[in-house]
Amino acid sequence: MNNPDVSEKLRYFVRLKKLASKLDVSGRQAALITSETNIFYLTDFANSEGTLFITRDKTYFLVDFRYGEAVKKSVANCEVVVYNKFYETLKELAERHGIKEILTETENITVKRFESFKTIFSECGCELSKSDMLDKMLVNLRIIKSREEIKKIRQAQKIAEEAYTELLNYVKVGAIERDLAFELEFLMRKKGASGVSFDLITIAGKNTSKPHGVPGDYAIQSGDFVTFDIGALYEGYHSDMTRTVAVGEVSDFQREIYNIVYTAQNVAAAAVKPGVKASYIDKVARDIITEHGYGECFGHSTGHGVGLDIHENPFVSSRSDVILSEGMVITVEPGIYIPEKFGVRIEDMGEVTSKGYDNFASLPKELIIL
Amino acid sequence: MNNPDVSEKLRYFVRLKKLASKLDVSGRQAALITSETNIFYLTDFANSEGTLFITRDKTYFLVDFRYGEAVKKSVANCEVVVYNKFYETLKELAERHGIKEILTETENITVKRFESFKTIFSECGCELSKSDMLDKMLVNLRIIKSREEIKKIRQAQKIAEEAYTELLNYVKVGAIERDLAFELEFLMRKKGASGVSFDLITIAGKNTSKPHGVPGDYAIQSGDFVTFDIGALYEGYHSDMTRTVAVGEVSDFQREIYNIVYTAQNVAAAAVKPGVKASYIDKVARDIITEHGYGECFGHSTGHGVGLDIHENPFVSSRSDVILSEGMVITVEPGIYIPEKFGVRIEDMGEVTSKGYDNFASLPKELIIL
Repeated sequence: MNNPDVSEKLRYFVRLKKLASKLDVSGRQAALITSETNIFYLTDFANSEGTLFITRDKTYFLVDFRYGEAVKKSVANCEVVVYNKFYETLKELAERHGIKEILTETENITVKRFESFKTIFSECGCELSKSDMLDKMLVNLRIIKSREEIKKIRQAQKIAEEAYTELLNYVKVGAIERDLAFELEFLMRKKGASGVSFDLITIAGKNTSKPHGVPGDYAIQSGDFVTFDIGALYEGYHSDMTRTVAVGEVSDFQREIYNIVYTAQNVAAAAVKPGVKASYIDKVARDIITEHGYGECFGHSTGHGVGLDIHENPFVSSRSDVILSEGMVITVEPGIYIPEKFGVRIEDMGEVTSKGYDNFASLPKELIIL
Repeated sequence: MNNPDVSEKLRYFVRLKKLASKLDVSGRQAALITSETNIFYLTDFANSEGTLFITRDKTYFLVDFRYGEAVKKSVANCEVVVYNKFYETLKELAERHGIKEILTETENITVKRFESFKTIFSECGCELSKSDMLDKMLVNLRIIKSREEIKKIRQAQKIAEEAYTELLNYVKVGAIERDLAFELEFLMRKKGASGVSFDLITIAGKNTSKPHGVPGDYAIQSGDFVTFDIGALYEGYHSDMTRTVAVGEVSDFQREIYNIVYTAQNVAAAAVKPGVKASYIDKVARDIITEHGYGECFGHSTGHGVGLDIHENPFVSSRSDVILSEGMVITVEPGIYIPEKFGVRIEDMGEVTSKGYDNFASLPKELIIL
């Protein structure tokens, strides 16, 4: 018998166990986790206020009064502690377990918070580690997606594609950038997205020359490129896709640029496989664009991981030292941006599998002229 | 002649000037600002990636390739620097100005980022200050709102109220919490909100006993309280309001609890005036609830500031040492939460003026039974 509820719960037990097993065998080391996404990853509970205190044999989920009921109901792999005095409770736990060193995140904790923790833990002889060891442990766990995570990311992508496909009916001369963003978000939500992965980019004409342009009052004109960089959030997981379409007509120059980006994107995506360096994928896309003389117009990196964060490891850039492995989910998104004229970006998102790049994006990439 | 564009630009010059004037007169101190809201406050440019490097006589706005064009067009009070190598550019600026000490935010910067800055600045003999001096400078600037800011906050509140008023038509037996949240957000966006200030709370029945409950699949039943904690975002500024209504009928117990919260909220709001401690407002609300025997069921603080952040200084809590002044915008939002039964919260948001509390919320607070 396969009880999905049990196996779902089990997954979180395993994740937490894996993390705890990396703590020092002496039992004197603990990990303190405050970031919402990492807590969600380890417990399946989304909350901006909770804190995990992880020792080798036990994890405590500290919450205040407001969330006590909810956490107790849904989290099975931690002991839930509803605190009155947060710092006192933490100290008490550290003392109870004889903890001497505490690892914290460094990417998801502010200097102010870190200093507060440092002060209070020093009162019970605990040192706060400044290393990024905990970040690395979490990255190594999160970078490889489980089948369940892939399902959610695929579903997020599916929602985005369906919404985008419907939206194309409204993409015509006179349509306002901002209205398109609004309509697209509305469509995603109607189709089950809990939100958008970022402020949707629906920009046209000159605006497309800004890789992260913001939709405004501009009305689409004939001859414009329109760039859609869109993502939906589904059960905590993101999706990310970019398509550039044309309205009315395109010049030879526009077509030339589009084709270079199209080629760079396809060749780079085809180069994705386990064992290849992430930086190599960046190089493949960049070389093609540079050979055509537009290297200076491709100022961002070629891609990034997607999961509980919209931008996460592995980063597909020239500086990355990650070697691609099965189960990683990455985007491939080269672009060329001609200042004051227009820009083109094409982006897919998919999984690294034994066979190569399992592309979650199913929509065509050939130039569409509406 | 009153040119709004010029006076608008001038405002940002003045803010930046005020901040720069607080740096050490030697000219050897600089401030590094990385948080999006603080950068927006000082430059009127919203961007998650930019960095301000502020010296006594000049401010640099560092951006990467993607945002160069946009920042140059819209920011008048900084010199815009489009960098290739971020850290090299920063070091070069520090050296050019003979900077020896750099202040950073501590509330809006991660440990990882701080450590990176520390390493690179140490290479040019610059020390990164660990004090929260810069946070305090920014809090002291941002805590008092300008007329322009008040206008935007009022507009955000107006949008939220209009959307809420329309939504009440859908609040009836059988309505689903999650649908109400979706509809409400949609209405706000249609009315000009650029987004919501937080995940809207539209919860009913037992869920209302969780102060920050999440709207789910629950369908409203007769006899339920329904709590709406809602806020709209307008031109970067937030609003915040809570109303609790009943559907069908209410028990005497529900009515009793409602009336206590209603009284506590009104008396606390009436106590707001310049010169009074924020902690006193908390005490006024808390005392009333405690006198009626429900002190244990009011586990959060009475209010908070609202502006570019939905929760910002001054905090209206027992631990606050802020004295209220004209131009501060605060919420007053006591509540009582009976575990496993129901909860009631009523929240207004308004400005501290010479006359007391200028309440931006115009909707009635008496118990409405739908």
